[in-house]
Formats: sequence, C-alpha cells, structure tokens
Amino acid sequence: MPKGVFITFEGIEGCGKSTQVDMLCEYLEKRGIDFIRVREPGGTAVGERIREILLTPEIKNMDGFTEFLLYLASRNELVKKIIRPALQQGRIVISDRYIDSSVAYQGGGRGIPVKLINRFNNIVVRNEKPHITFLIDIDETKGLKRIKRHDRIEKENMDFHKRVREMYIKIARRSPGRIKIIDGNLSKEEMHKKILQYVNELLKKRGYNEE
Amino acid sequence: MPKGVFITFEGIEGCGKSTQVDMLCEYLEKRGIDFIRVREPGGTAVGERIREILLTPEIKNMDGFTEFLLYLASRNELVKKIIRPALQQGRIVISDRYIDSSVAYQGGGRGIPVKLINRFNNIVVRNEKPHITFLIDIDETKGLKRIKRHDRIEKENMDFHKRVREMYIKIARRSPGRIKIIDGNLSKEEMHKKILQYVNELLKKRGYNEE
Repeated sequence: MPKGVFITFEGIEGCGKSTQVDMLCEYLEKRGIDFIRVREPGGTAVGERIREILLTPEIKNMDGFTEFLLYLASRNELVKKIIRPALQQGRIVISDRYIDSSVAYQGGGRGIPVKLINRFNNIVVRNEKPHITFLIDIDETKGLKRIKRHDRIEKENMDFHKRVREMYIKIARRSPGRIKIIDGNLSKEEMHKKILQYVNELLKKRGYNEE
Repeated sequence: MPKGVFITFEGIEGCGKSTQVDMLCEYLEKRGIDFIRVREPGGTAVGERIREILLTPEIKNMDGFTEFLLYLASRNELVKKIIRPALQQGRIVISDRYIDSSVAYQGGGRGIPVKLINRFNNIVVRNEKPHITFLIDIDETKGLKRIKRHDRIEKENMDFHKRVREMYIKIARRSPGRIKIIDGNLSKEEMHKKILQYVNELLKKRGYNEE
C-alpha cells in the first residue's frame, strides 16, 4: 500500500504555478494515479467563502493580521476536512499554495513576525507538512505583467511583491530538502520536466509503482 | 479629559443581553454622553462578512478551531479599526460579545483548550481588555425558549449551551473584579438598574462627570 504524498506549489502572482499544477495533474491522470487537487484560500465550503472576503477588491485596508487569521481559518478547515483524511488513506494531495504563502505574503509582504506565523501554522497543520514544495521563482515585474485580472492582493504595489519574492527565496534556502526552486523563466515544458523528476522520485519512495 | 471606557456584555443565547445593551445606550444618549456600540462577530466591513459565514445555517460541521479563527479575525479587525482608536480618544465603547465569548463557546462548548484560546486572544486584543463585563446569566433551557430565529450556533444541542453557560460562570468566578454576574431572571428594568450602578461608578473613576 502506498503512503500519502503531499505536494505544494508556491510563488508570486503570475509565476506560472497554476499551469504547473495543471500539467502535473494531467500527468498523474494519464498514469492512472488517483490524486486530489486543492487550493488556498478555499477548497472547502467555508474556505471558498473566506476566499471571497480575501480576494474581493471591494475591501480596502484589511489589517495584515486579520488577513493572516482568515488564511489560517481556511487552512485549518482544509487540513481537517480534506488533506488529513486523504493522506491517511494513502492518497496524493496537490495544493496550490499552503503554509509558505503565509510566511511569504503576511510575513515578507505585510511584516508580521515570521516566528508568530510559524507558531500559528504549526498549531493548524500539525503533521500535515508537504513532502515537497515547488517554488516557481520569477522576477516580480515579469510575474505581474502576466496577470490580467487584479484581485485585492495582486493590486499591492511592486515593492510588496518584491518582499514576498525575497521571503520565498529565504525560506527555500532554509529548507532545501523540502523546497525546490524552479526557475520561472524556463518554458512550461522545461519546468514540468524538472518537477516530474522530483515527483517521480518521491512517489517511488512513498510506495507508488514505477511507470 | 475623561479616559476611554470599555464595557462588554456576555451570556448565552436568549439571556437578554442585547436588550440590556439597548437600555444602556439609551441611558447614555439621554445623558448626552458620546459612545460607540459594536458587536461580535461583525462591526467592520470584513467582520460583517465573517459574521455571515459564522451564522449561516447553510454551513454544516464547521471545525471548532476554524470557527475560533474566524471569530478571532473579526475581533482583530474590530480592535484595530474601531475599539483601539476609540479608546485612545477617550471614548466609551460598548460591545455585545468579546473575548469571553470565545472562551465560553469555543472553549466550553467545542472543547478547544482554554489556554490556547487565551493565548490567541491576548495576541489580538493586547491592552484592549474590557474595564467591566456584564454576564447575564440564565438557565439554558429558559434562554433558548426565548429565541425565535435559529442560526448555526443557536441550533447546537442543549448540552452544548449548558457547557457554554458553565464556562461563563467559571471565568466570571476567576475574574470577579471585571466580570459582574447579572441574574437573567430579573425583570429587564431591575437588571438595567444593577448595571447602571456599576457603569456610573466606572464612568466616575474614568473622569466622566456625574449626572
């Protein structure tokens, strides 16, 4: 019986993360491997409603710690209702954003102490840490140029997104075993190829049969 | 110059708390004393949207810790945007529910460790603790009989509301200086009279002129 596998994708807006999630999911489907795909904020009835509050441009000047607590509430619901049960059943879970987004956006971006964020994150996720995290790294000016529709977070100024990117790099360097930096300047096929190398190695380790 | 005054009201559903808030506000208006009235969850643009998520009966089986984090997000926004600035200006703030509701409902009702709730509450409210809290105490069967419309929290079973009431009494006994238990079996005029005695004493202490 294979063991649960937890894969997350991180990166600034416009880095190409969602395309890579799509490509990984298609690959797994083709191989006939069962998986579930989630996103943050959202992924549950409560989480999708929280997502609306977090992303609507109608709300101005939300306090940074309120924002963090809302992400955390969405994450808690997602962990308890979806991620934990799936991993316990030995399934593969792929999440578009997770704990590192809070450190990068609310820590790097909004200036909330990273220690505090980690403490809260740990209470919520417990053992449900990702086995591997792909950080798609791209220059913030390049990333934001790719975005067409603008939500509340995307509307932050360039300096905000620069701080987010820098924090991502910092935490990736601190956890090189878990977080793999993927160069977002590569073509989507090249990125996908690199990601698959890591994923296939991980799947093998967790008891999934080779292709 | 008078100093800020922070008054909160607590109690189980149907205890008569909101009527007492109404009566206190009317009294202050008659005396020409400026005050602001808020409620939890809610009281800000973000908070009112959180309130919708928390109280809609459409959402079933929300995890208790998710519920707590949502209340906390609403509270954080309320403290930073409304309560703290008002108190710093020397104003009177009256809140229908606050920190003790989390201890009673999510601690007593849902079984989340009280220590954890207090720790999170303290990070959010910092120095903005109430000067006085009125706990309108009533038997849970009597309280729930008075309620006509039922939201998600009110729909919990009787045992849940019993645990909430017991936790309220417990925290009131621990903080007799701040939390005053008002017998919810009294007439609303009798309760109002008792509350006014405490309020007028407090106002005098904080530099508000006597009537």
